[in-house]
Amino acid sequence: MKVDGRARRSIELADDRRSVIVLDQTKLPFEVAWLRLASLDDAARAIRDMHVRGAPLIGATAVYGVALALADDRDALDRACEVLAATRPTAINLRWALDRVRAAVRAVARDDRAAAAFAAAARLCDDDVACNAAIGRHGLALVRAAAARVGDRPVRVLTHCNAGWLATVDWGTALAPIYAAHDAGLRIHVWVDETRPRNQGALTAWELAQHGVPHALIVDNAGGYLMARGEVDLCLVGTDRTTRDGDVCNKIGTYLKALAARDCDVPFYVALPSSTIDWDIDARAIPIEERAHAEVRMLGGVELVPASTAVANPAFDITPARLVTALVTERGTCAASRDGLHALFPEHAR
Amino acid sequence: MKVDGRARRSIELADDRRSVIVLDQTKLPFEVAWLRLASLDDAARAIRDMHVRGAPLIGATAVYGVALALADDRDALDRACEVLAATRPTAINLRWALDRVRAAVRAVARDDRAAAAFAAAARLCDDDVACNAAIGRHGLALVRAAAARVGDRPVRVLTHCNAGWLATVDWGTALAPIYAAHDAGLRIHVWVDETRPRNQGALTAWELAQHGVPHALIVDNAGGYLMARGEVDLCLVGTDRTTRDGDVCNKIGTYLKALAARDCDVPFYVALPSSTIDWDIDARAIPIEERAHAEVRMLGGVELVPASTAVANPAFDITPARLVTALVTERGTCAASRDGLHALFPEHAR
Repeated sequence: MKVDGRARRSIELADDRRSVIVLDQTKLPFEVAWLRLASLDDAARAIRDMHVRGAPLIGATAVYGVALALADDRDALDRACEVLAATRPTAINLRWALDRVRAAVRAVARDDRAAAAFAAAARLCDDDVACNAAIGRHGLALVRAAAARVGDRPVRVLTHCNAGWLATVDWGTALAPIYAAHDAGLRIHVWVDETRPRNQGALTAWELAQHGVPHALIVDNAGGYLMARGEVDLCLVGTDRTTRDGDVCNKIGTYLKALAARDCDVPFYVALPSSTIDWDIDARAIPIEERAHAEVRMLGGVELVPASTAVANPAFDITPARLVTALVTERGTCAASRDGLHALFPEHAR
Repeated sequence: MKVDGRARRSIELADDRRSVIVLDQTKLPFEVAWLRLASLDDAARAIRDMHVRGAPLIGATAVYGVALALADDRDALDRACEVLAATRPTAINLRWALDRVRAAVRAVARDDRAAAAFAAAARLCDDDVACNAAIGRHGLALVRAAAARVGDRPVRVLTHCNAGWLATVDWGTALAPIYAAHDAGLRIHVWVDETRPRNQGALTAWELAQHGVPHALIVDNAGGYLMARGEVDLCLVGTDRTTRDGDVCNKIGTYLKALAARDCDVPFYVALPSSTIDWDIDARAIPIEERAHAEVRMLGGVELVPASTAVANPAFDITPARLVTALVTERGTCAASRDGLHALFPEHAR
């Protein structure tokens, strides 16, 4: 996507080919700042402190983190994977990405490991871009169908959190169909959930503004009201982990929007690269990250409640498959069910 | 309730008996500041800018506003009612309170109007306190029933916005049963929704802390997750307007929590003085206040998104009666239905 008119990815190998440049998402939407990651520690910190965020981008950053670690110490593979795996417990494709780089590195001689890891990272990034472009094409059909239903007005899409190109290497997952639709000349209006406590909605609004997609930011409380008033034609969100049964673990609050969509007969779609599917887990077994309480107590450096106020801060929730109209993957659209997923991914069918 | 150890109401006649003192809620939870209202303009501004808020307290402030206007100009009745009615469109008991003071004032000679209005305001405040105490007693039975179900652990109550003593003259509506239960020795833990965009959850947390009730603040997105995990035993919220059919118009986001409660088999109770019942309206006809967009763009004086970001900010939503387990009124508890309400308020049955 373009930043200030220039095509960029959210993560890029630096010109020195020994460090990595990422867009510092903690500075957005007010400042476009790029951050250089030159070591394992830099990469781990960038993930943990959410300078980079979004399941696919976390995976890409972690693989580059392994490469940076191996450039420092060719025996650092296990330690690097351990450090990086611990940065964020919920996203499944962090683990998937680390397995992938581990396999690539183990196959080569010790002296070639860093180069192999950098190559694996570059491949993973290219694959992510291609995957998201495919999600965009498949999701576009759903937006076209909605456009045919609504007639002569924009299709109004509600999204939660940021599952745009900032959450991936490029295009995004949930936003890929929106960009594809906009680029195809369809009229779109996006309701952007603020997404407390970290307000990733500000990132989504920034992204959409960069690309010229009409949108409005709303508080997380507002989506149910808008759906009940008939002002939402479809919901489209990403996911951090999807079970083999089609249950969706995504940013806290997604479940509430899926309930409202069901109550108001609004289609609720989840866009995902298949790397976020955990073929081995039941929804109840997914570890839910409890993040720092300061995220709730403070915002933008300002104290919202006294430090003495007790707080809870779960970061994800589970939207059961029964509330999901369809999953949009790089191979196409399917029902949120074991059968639906197996039809698209027969290699995982028992 | 007590503030810094001293029994206070949220609105009190000043010692000079010609002005009114209110707790400035825009300064909480960091500062306890009292604001003097000495004119109609002061009262209207206090309501419009939410120095006072909460349907019952808005009503009380408006009646004092009429008294202050009449003290300045004994012919100001109609103008005062018009100015005050326009401050907040959704709360029904603002209109109810103005009708009440208008009736009291019209019955007396012009020279006695100001005194009559002050007397009407004092009566309305005393009635509000008695009404909320009764809601507390009736709601206590529901909390006791939950305590019997959960056994040897606290009853965990989720509440949205602030329907505590800060929203009324004393006790509160949704929080009255919680205070009654706490004072009766029952163990309670309250999940307090942050309630974006104005973060009235900070007020609720402050209130509960003043009274020693255990609680934790959560973002508005978290309640569904907590209910799905079995960590909420009941929901208890207030309402700004209730229809004759038991539909509940309350702070934006209430509907989403009611959907989650239904999906997770958690009882969803709404506490209300009967002055919030609009016997003449269907839910679809309730005007929903669209508040200033700066409320979404800014928080605590800090810009969250650039001023150029488009925003929508509806302040209330409708929770249909089918999602409400019961209404808790000053006359007792009833089903959220026309029959339920008529059984408690037969004078309104056709």
